[in-house]
Amino acid sequence: MQKFGLYIPTRLVFGAGELKNLSQQPLPGKKALIVISSGTSMKKYGYLDLVQKQLAQAGVESEVFDKILPNPIKSHVEEGAQLCRDSKCDFVVGLGGGSSIDTAKAIAVVVAMGGDLWDYVQGGHGKGKPVTRALPIVAIPTTAGTGTEVDPWGVITNTEVNEKIGFGFEHTFPTLSIVDPELMLTLPPKLTAYQGFDAFFHAAEGYINRTQHTPISDLYALEAVRLLYKYLPVAVADGRDLRARSKVAWASTLAGMVEATSSCTGEHSLEHAMSAFYPKLPHGAGLIAISKAYYKAFKNDAMKRYMKMAEKMTMQKSARPSDFLDALDIMQRECGVDNVKLSDWGITPADFDRFATNATETMGGLFDFDPRFLTREEIIDIYQQSYK
Amino acid sequence: MQKFGLYIPTRLVFGAGELKNLSQQPLPGKKALIVISSGTSMKKYGYLDLVQKQLAQAGVESEVFDKILPNPIKSHVEEGAQLCRDSKCDFVVGLGGGSSIDTAKAIAVVVAMGGDLWDYVQGGHGKGKPVTRALPIVAIPTTAGTGTEVDPWGVITNTEVNEKIGFGFEHTFPTLSIVDPELMLTLPPKLTAYQGFDAFFHAAEGYINRTQHTPISDLYALEAVRLLYKYLPVAVADGRDLRARSKVAWASTLAGMVEATSSCTGEHSLEHAMSAFYPKLPHGAGLIAISKAYYKAFKNDAMKRYMKMAEKMTMQKSARPSDFLDALDIMQRECGVDNVKLSDWGITPADFDRFATNATETMGGLFDFDPRFLTREEIIDIYQQSYK
Repeated sequence: MQKFGLYIPTRLVFGAGELKNLSQQPLPGKKALIVISSGTSMKKYGYLDLVQKQLAQAGVESEVFDKILPNPIKSHVEEGAQLCRDSKCDFVVGLGGGSSIDTAKAIAVVVAMGGDLWDYVQGGHGKGKPVTRALPIVAIPTTAGTGTEVDPWGVITNTEVNEKIGFGFEHTFPTLSIVDPELMLTLPPKLTAYQGFDAFFHAAEGYINRTQHTPISDLYALEAVRLLYKYLPVAVADGRDLRARSKVAWASTLAGMVEATSSCTGEHSLEHAMSAFYPKLPHGAGLIAISKAYYKAFKNDAMKRYMKMAEKMTMQKSARPSDFLDALDIMQRECGVDNVKLSDWGITPADFDRFATNATETMGGLFDFDPRFLTREEIIDIYQQSYK
Repeated sequence: MQKFGLYIPTRLVFGAGELKNLSQQPLPGKKALIVISSGTSMKKYGYLDLVQKQLAQAGVESEVFDKILPNPIKSHVEEGAQLCRDSKCDFVVGLGGGSSIDTAKAIAVVVAMGGDLWDYVQGGHGKGKPVTRALPIVAIPTTAGTGTEVDPWGVITNTEVNEKIGFGFEHTFPTLSIVDPELMLTLPPKLTAYQGFDAFFHAAEGYINRTQHTPISDLYALEAVRLLYKYLPVAVADGRDLRARSKVAWASTLAGMVEATSSCTGEHSLEHAMSAFYPKLPHGAGLIAISKAYYKAFKNDAMKRYMKMAEKMTMQKSARPSDFLDALDIMQRECGVDNVKLSDWGITPADFDRFATNATETMGGLFDFDPRFLTREEIIDIYQQSYK
């Protein structure tokens, strides 16, 4: 039995309506920088207002930084860090999707450590300097997909060099995370499906990971796979179904715990390369588009693990690894995303070569975790199969 | 879907031989009070020596307090706290069974907060004052049963008033825990079985708990139940089987995570009352002795949960809750503890009344978590059935 570690120091508070109890939680400072997207929904649905009122009730002042894009960029980390320093905030709240929470994590690092995010990023043009501190982070996700509320990871795009890279350090685990499925009731079906499949692949990749999976990540992963297969189609079909939203939110958090205890594999590198060049491609849609070809590639390399996932999904005994591919196909059909293809976002075969280069250069380490090492030809073939 | 929290801030390091890497872990101070039992094994097997050498290698001095009894007592908490203060230790290492680690936790509270442990204990003669800090705690279990390495709980007996009470606060989660199954290879079969069943009941009680169980505690509990049913008999039969020892150690840690996320039930109150009066009765043996009568009492009150546990144990579909009772019986036979009875430790029917009073007075709150509230007559009947 292997050696492994488990360290998820985040205080997780899960449940419908729990955002209304934020003021009763232990808060890590006296003034918060609240990081939200450039969209309107955090204001329109009253979530920002609620957070500010709850903070005020606990005697905590706040400042708002509302510029984050769906694919968050490095220059906004710098701008947010400056605002954080100028307004003397002592902790950072990420409210919204993964982009806002990931930017909050990056701001927390840059403010505490000084310098530039790419001083600390590993891979690409990052300098990989050690991170020894960060401002405390509070995560309040309003989507179910990234799992960033219980893992140390963030993904930021450096537009100057077209690098979309994951970063993460012990100090970027959120101190406190409020996962309140009520905040997710208004998400449209398509986004629900994209984000839900992001969570699904965090779990599946962490489970088939050849070297990083552990007994605890396996436990989290199989439960996330089981829950998402069962409840994601329900949440996609009826977004107001609070029970299905709750199950999907919990599965997404579990999948985040997989990311904290195992690791994503090459599938995530393949996708990040695409959305680095095509920022309008939603991360989850990119993953869905390449997933069939990606998982087919390892069908004979992780047979037992494919069958185990299939069994958790279908609740039936599995006799062959392709049962997982079939179950994945059914799930994508039930969520209305079985026809997602790369050409939908303007990607052409002329992109595949630079995708392959970017994938292996910026987050290439993840390919080492695949059940078998993919050749460059196989990588391009995965893009080719996912094209149309 | 219910509301729940998850907070286990402990850094867990799991694996055979990991104690030899202690010096590479982040240590929370410069001088450690190492708390060990009054027995000889920590010295005889070289574990104390190894810990001291590893600490020294990391530049950490240490002092040893070696008086802990199998049922640890309050006066040793006071003596250890005095030694800790006098020798200016800034963290506490619990090395050994649950008794040493629990005492380390109690010392960490008393040194940081001042006063007496019963100032902070809730129940019995405890004053229930809030605990706002504790010295950092490092846990190095050499047995697999208590789960104290990943939960905030400890159990100390106040011999002046015959109260064996559990305590626990956010600050008594260990900062660091090293679970090294190699340290468990020398445990004799009987103790292995007793301790393994302690872990099993942490999981089973946390799973049938009517009000405190959560989606995450259920996940941990069912995996612990599954692993212990399969591997505890193997570890009892051949203590040198490192794989079985590892599986049992991991299951025990998972069961500790159940204690941190759900709670024990009345079974633990019933047992603590017995060993408060009969300190030579091993906690696990006491639990085994009363388990058949205890679980029979709720057979029709938690039917689905009994069946689910039975399915995890036998790997077969269960159609009736008594399948769990049958599987428990098989497991106890395979571990050679199916004939454990209260009379073996000198307990007589004349004790039952004071047991029942002690159980409901000192840790009576746990009865609220049972699938159904037991009457005093039913409590006495459980002792009666477990007598011979």
